[in-house]
Amino acid sequence: MSTKANPGDKVVLAYSGGLDTSIILKWLVNKGFHVICYCANVGQFGENFDKVKAKALSLGAAAVYIADLRAEFVTDYIWPAVQANAIYESRYLLGTSLARPVISKKMVEIATKEGAQYVAHGATGKGNDQVRFELCAQALNASLKTIAPWRDTEFIEKFKGRQDLIAYAQEQGIPIDATPKAPYSVDENLYHTSYESGMLEDPMTGPMPEMFKMTVDPKVAPNEAEKIRIHFASGVPVKVTNLSHPGKELTDPLELFLELNRVGGKHGVGRIDIVENRFVGIKSRGVYETPGGTILRVAHLDLEGLCMDREVMKLRDSLSVKFAEFCYNGFWFAPEMDFVRHAIAYSQTNITGHVDMELYKGNVTVVGRYSDVALYSADLASMDLEGGGANIEYNPSDAQGFIRINATRLKAFNCVQKKL
Amino acid sequence: MSTKANPGDKVVLAYSGGLDTSIILKWLVNKGFHVICYCANVGQFGENFDKVKAKALSLGAAAVYIADLRAEFVTDYIWPAVQANAIYESRYLLGTSLARPVISKKMVEIATKEGAQYVAHGATGKGNDQVRFELCAQALNASLKTIAPWRDTEFIEKFKGRQDLIAYAQEQGIPIDATPKAPYSVDENLYHTSYESGMLEDPMTGPMPEMFKMTVDPKVAPNEAEKIRIHFASGVPVKVTNLSHPGKELTDPLELFLELNRVGGKHGVGRIDIVENRFVGIKSRGVYETPGGTILRVAHLDLEGLCMDREVMKLRDSLSVKFAEFCYNGFWFAPEMDFVRHAIAYSQTNITGHVDMELYKGNVTVVGRYSDVALYSADLASMDLEGGGANIEYNPSDAQGFIRINATRLKAFNCVQKKL
Amino acid sequence: MSTKANPGDKVVLAYSGGLDTSIILKWLVNKGFHVICYCANVGQFGENFDKVKAKALSLGAAAVYIADLRAEFVTDYIWPAVQANAIYESRYLLGTSLARPVISKKMVEIATKEGAQYVAHGATGKGNDQVRFELCAQALNASLKTIAPWRDTEFIEKFKGRQDLIAYAQEQGIPIDATPKAPYSVDENLYHTSYESGMLEDPMTGPMPEMFKMTVDPKVAPNEAEKIRIHFASGVPVKVTNLSHPGKELTDPLELFLELNRVGGKHGVGRIDIVENRFVGIKSRGVYETPGGTILRVAHLDLEGLCMDREVMKLRDSLSVKFAEFCYNGFWFAPEMDFVRHAIAYSQTNITGHVDMELYKGNVTVVGRYSDVALYSADLASMDLEGGGANIEYNPSDAQGFIRINATRLKAFNCVQKKL
Amino acid sequence: MSTKANPGDKVVLAYSGGLDTSIILKWLVNKGFHVICYCANVGQFGENFDKVKAKALSLGAAAVYIADLRAEFVTDYIWPAVQANAIYESRYLLGTSLARPVISKKMVEIATKEGAQYVAHGATGKGNDQVRFELCAQALNASLKTIAPWRDTEFIEKFKGRQDLIAYAQEQGIPIDATPKAPYSVDENLYHTSYESGMLEDPMTGPMPEMFKMTVDPKVAPNEAEKIRIHFASGVPVKVTNLSHPGKELTDPLELFLELNRVGGKHGVGRIDIVENRFVGIKSRGVYETPGGTILRVAHLDLEGLCMDREVMKLRDSLSVKFAEFCYNGFWFAPEMDFVRHAIAYSQTNITGHVDMELYKGNVTVVGRYSDVALYSADLASMDLEGGGANIEYNPSDAQGFIRINATRLKAFNCVQKKL
Repeated sequence: MSTKANPGDKVVLAYSGGLDTSIILKWLVNKGFHVICYCANVGQFGENFDKVKAKALSLGAAAVYIADLRAEFVTDYIWPAVQANAIYESRYLLGTSLARPVISKKMVEIATKEGAQYVAHGATGKGNDQVRFELCAQALNASLKTIAPWRDTEFIEKFKGRQDLIAYAQEQGIPIDATPKAPYSVDENLYHTSYESGMLEDPMTGPMPEMFKMTVDPKVAPNEAEKIRIHFASGVPVKVTNLSHPGKELTDPLELFLELNRVGGKHGVGRIDIVENRFVGIKSRGVYETPGGTILRVAHLDLEGLCMDREVMKLRDSLSVKFAEFCYNGFWFAPEMDFVRHAIAYSQTNITGHVDMELYKGNVTVVGRYSDVALYSADLASMDLEGGGANIEYNPSDAQGFIRINATRLKAFNCVQKKL
Repeated sequence: MSTKANPGDKVVLAYSGGLDTSIILKWLVNKGFHVICYCANVGQFGENFDKVKAKALSLGAAAVYIADLRAEFVTDYIWPAVQANAIYESRYLLGTSLARPVISKKMVEIATKEGAQYVAHGATGKGNDQVRFELCAQALNASLKTIAPWRDTEFIEKFKGRQDLIAYAQEQGIPIDATPKAPYSVDENLYHTSYESGMLEDPMTGPMPEMFKMTVDPKVAPNEAEKIRIHFASGVPVKVTNLSHPGKELTDPLELFLELNRVGGKHGVGRIDIVENRFVGIKSRGVYETPGGTILRVAHLDLEGLCMDREVMKLRDSLSVKFAEFCYNGFWFAPEMDFVRHAIAYSQTNITGHVDMELYKGNVTVVGRYSDVALYSADLASMDLEGGGANIEYNPSDAQGFIRINATRLKAFNCVQKKL
Repeated sequence: MSTKANPGDKVVLAYSGGLDTSIILKWLVNKGFHVICYCANVGQFGENFDKVKAKALSLGAAAVYIADLRAEFVTDYIWPAVQANAIYESRYLLGTSLARPVISKKMVEIATKEGAQYVAHGATGKGNDQVRFELCAQALNASLKTIAPWRDTEFIEKFKGRQDLIAYAQEQGIPIDATPKAPYSVDENLYHTSYESGMLEDPMTGPMPEMFKMTVDPKVAPNEAEKIRIHFASGVPVKVTNLSHPGKELTDPLELFLELNRVGGKHGVGRIDIVENRFVGIKSRGVYETPGGTILRVAHLDLEGLCMDREVMKLRDSLSVKFAEFCYNGFWFAPEMDFVRHAIAYSQTNITGHVDMELYKGNVTVVGRYSDVALYSADLASMDLEGGGANIEYNPSDAQGFIRINATRLKAFNCVQKKL
Repeated sequence: MSTKANPGDKVVLAYSGGLDTSIILKWLVNKGFHVICYCANVGQFGENFDKVKAKALSLGAAAVYIADLRAEFVTDYIWPAVQANAIYESRYLLGTSLARPVISKKMVEIATKEGAQYVAHGATGKGNDQVRFELCAQALNASLKTIAPWRDTEFIEKFKGRQDLIAYAQEQGIPIDATPKAPYSVDENLYHTSYESGMLEDPMTGPMPEMFKMTVDPKVAPNEAEKIRIHFASGVPVKVTNLSHPGKELTDPLELFLELNRVGGKHGVGRIDIVENRFVGIKSRGVYETPGGTILRVAHLDLEGLCMDREVMKLRDSLSVKFAEFCYNGFWFAPEMDFVRHAIAYSQTNITGHVDMELYKGNVTVVGRYSDVALYSADLASMDLEGGGANIEYNPSDAQGFIRINATRLKAFNCVQKKL
């Protein structure tokens, strides 16, 4: 498959300002496309969006959209993930996966507004991101077509290695960053930073200490622990206060999340290093840092312990696994994901209260939790008392019948086993 | 319900040497039971089993069995839990739950051998342990009856508080430990120590620093990290070496597990503080320390990332949740647990290799992993190469069809949504 | 446990007018209880509620409530079960289980209104119904206590067999039905009739032809098939028409359900004969007839095939199993059941259309289905066309990439297998 | 993508003798391929394999393999499906899906033996069968490539409609069947026959009465019911006897299965008509007849009711859904399917006994079941007795504690609800 443009065809290109997407921009312009560049601000560290815009225009972009999606990213994507305790394969907090749909949604909006026939991206043909971008785009607008140069036979043939990219850049007047390319690739947003490929493809090679952007190494984190309190309403964080440094009280979703990143990063919280399973059937190795997300997971799980019914928790947990899988695989705008989000949100009605935590050299330790609507009852839990307080009677002698009835089935089974 | 003995009835009492079970022993003897005491060694810290035995005999026990179950506990209970990545409600590693069946199994063996009609235990009527002891016992020998004094109306009437216990002890010549009772209860075995009730019933009260037995506080753990390597064969740990202090190489299951406890405890690994859901429908608060188990969980999950097929992992994960639930609820010897253990063991065939980890102030960080039978392939994962090495071809252009076919369903759905 | 009344204690007794509950009524009156009888009309066949009321009053009831719960039973209990395709252990349509909560809810309302401290029922100590009645009652009003004479030691001691019941009836002037007791027990409501115990306890003994009340034997059903059409809106039946005998068009929930019972019963639809697992751990054998419910299950499943997304269906199916289990076990008013009902209802948004069926000698055969919001598209399904109609493009060549990417994982696995 | 052959390249073509695969054969021969035809006997009705072979040779096949896979199909594919109660989307017994892996396995064996680089098939680009054939082939031999002419751009361009096929056949001397093509497509094997596409693409159009091959219409089935008995050992059918016509006793797997087909077909058993979800994301309408499979499903479910533990059943059911999904989607030789088959087989250890059934005009009615290892116990089930027979004591008064403990959680929940 190789890409052909009709004169005047419009394409919205997800543009980062880096070498790869700059080359794609030029390549598309040279093919006669009317290229609209789109750069989403999802909280990348240290990005200069004015420079990105200027560069795109200088390379022939017909228009450039810079979209600040940070607040929407937090409330519409990260908050549902927190409610779900979403985690992929027991370990990965889905930092890249969660950002893709918010980016894609705006890309489709721009394409629709501009009357573009195409969207284009610089994701590789072996990764998850191509799938996420395109499934989101196709779900939202079935008539949009995708250009994925890293799957285009002509493009791949032309650009076999980094040297070919640099040669083309020089030939086409594309500025090249003086900094040498890192021996791994990076994806950044306000939820996490990920590192993969290159030297990290060897699962025995640990991450380089200097690569991390959001967190310090636990070994160089402060020797003093710091205490914070997170308030939740219906499973969503609504206030963060710093118990060690009173005065701070943040309620704006974006602000409170960034504060959790800051304090988590300061104490070395949230690094992982894993081998995971991509949707395209390949195992890959990734290193991630998710400071605020890690703190929120610990806090939310803890508050659910206090407030959520045991059996609702089991059901929700079975859907949480699905939330993570669908999100990871790019099905954010799929009917199954809509179903799961709806059901999980309903499970959160009573998850309201606060959790106190101590951060110290990579550790997030819960030191207290409170809720007005706790299902936990100290009276009921107490071993010292018969009875469970005002309304709930608990009679220890009932436990005997409970156990005996539960044993009936086991006895029948063991009777038959003895026959065999 | 109150307990009646026929003259000469035999009972096997799970005896710890503490005040409660000493009083139960005396109370049973006074009722005319022939009491056989049984004390299981599952690795309790600092227990003097000779003293326990002498005390039981002095209080009227007709016989005393001390059973060293430590090796069996590791290989037949902890290893399957490691294979399962067993964790209850996302956080609890099941330290008490796993010990109950190994203790019960031996208790039933002794009862059978001695021709006892009864087994007795000192577990309370609100907790999980009564359920676990009795379901295990009834599953293994349906004709055995249970005496649970803390559910016996006469016993409860007699012993309404600690003062009644002490008064009875003094009256009956039962020695009372000079140490004042801790304001919480403790359960110990080589897998973990748990702390609950008393002052811990307030979920806002943190654990007391001095109560922990197996781990140091991460804040006072060594400033130097320590590296270890754990080898697994078919999902079971088979060798532990210390990379920071070469020379040690442990292959005996009990020895290698105790070494993981030692090194984990030294570095403050494995403390949690949670509100959990008991099988009897009560929420309770518990603090746990599980140093070796925490290290093994991290290592095993990591090796599975390298070696286990993605879809097998999903299925196994769905059964792991059940493993934890059944184990927690006391169904170790139930047919469903047998089914789950069998299926999970089969999933572990290829989980063979080693994982290197660094322990530092509460953190367990994977720094490398290797397997001869890894499903991970650096060639396949690499973004730089087309193709996946010698045997597995991967063509990036195939991803386009993969994505488009996956999108078909989403497009149909969104077409209908637009109609509505 | 035996029941003790304080003078003036009030109890609401679920009263059927039969021998057992008449004896319980008298027994409670004789103990000094103020007994309020309650008889729920859930569509029992041929019941004369005036006679039931008169009998209760004649036996000493202080008051009698006859409550027509039929419409509520259909809309609030049967409709959610239809939406869920609820079926227990792959075969049982939950006819008894669904009726218990609607009966219990009203019983609790009456008890609350009357200021009763107790509710009482005549369910046995081995069955599911005691659990269902009591869990529902305790969930709705935690302070209500239950009297279950068939678990009361004094009552059981007094009434060891049917002869004791008859003797007491004669002594106390309780009228005894002249008809000899059937050699099995029956439970009836408008959703189903069940038959169990007695001669049916032998799993090799088939049901007696004469016992069925709602359905004819397929062998004597009409030789002419009959066609009906059922319209659904959001998964709920909203209209039934008879295509063989045009003119009838029913939209009232109770009326349309009774019509489905009538036409289903006429054609011998909906008999089953199974061994099932009770919540108390006992296997039991039951024979059931559920004519209307069987038709609705076939129709609803079929319409979902046309309108429901594949992945939503998988998720909903996983919750349907839970719906059936919770309902069967008596947890209708539990938080987990609330969660499941809410989630399933959401999955039904687009299940709107109609299904045509032919009824013939026990068979329910779908002969056509239609929906304005079908996800099915003949254009897309067609093997003859490339493309899927106006909006959804389907390119057969995409299937190659889809298959190859799906095979990547399998190839990696088989590579490793060959090494072993 | 269009297919290119190198001179001498070998391809194994799944050849049926029909028009489509005859044209593919000739087209491959004309391209210079060395074509080996392979025709699997999986029990297609009325196939003359000698004629198929002669036709292939006459059209240029270098060799022809006719493989009788019927016995292997029954024991290695149908039996595991019976053990699993495998059913796709609650209705489809997977007749086509189960046959694909046995056909593919032999195809790969032939390709390996012949040193072929390619396998080829005539499945369309919109269906499931292409996926099943190719996933099976690629799982078994990763280096084999596939030729799928109905996805080949050149082939599709050339053969746009049936007229093009006929023209090419006439031009190339390919004999054309005189019988006009049916207005739907058919897939046959000994497990089932399926009908789809063409006129059946309209979901309101019922199946044509004359199309069915294995079953009579229930309306013309015999007026006399017929009784059969099926014996199972560990979940697998091992003997079939006809209780209405004693004398027949079949134990050979293939023979007993064919007898179930015969007697089921005679009585009109096993027709369904559904809209289902293909793996490629398209909904499609299919009509199926599966007489023997339908009988076996009823019988096996029933015996499990008698012999399988309740909780094992729940776990097995969750895996049965996966068995059906994996099988339907073509993942028979995938690691997840191996895991599921292994686990399900283990659940069947005690499913041993027999089930008696009556067949009558489309109905399969269980009339009795027996097992030496039943978990069902009439003594335990009986409402008349206290106690559960020799070994299992059941005390009705225990039910009270059981219920109360189960209610604890519900009471706590409702307390909190009232606060809100």
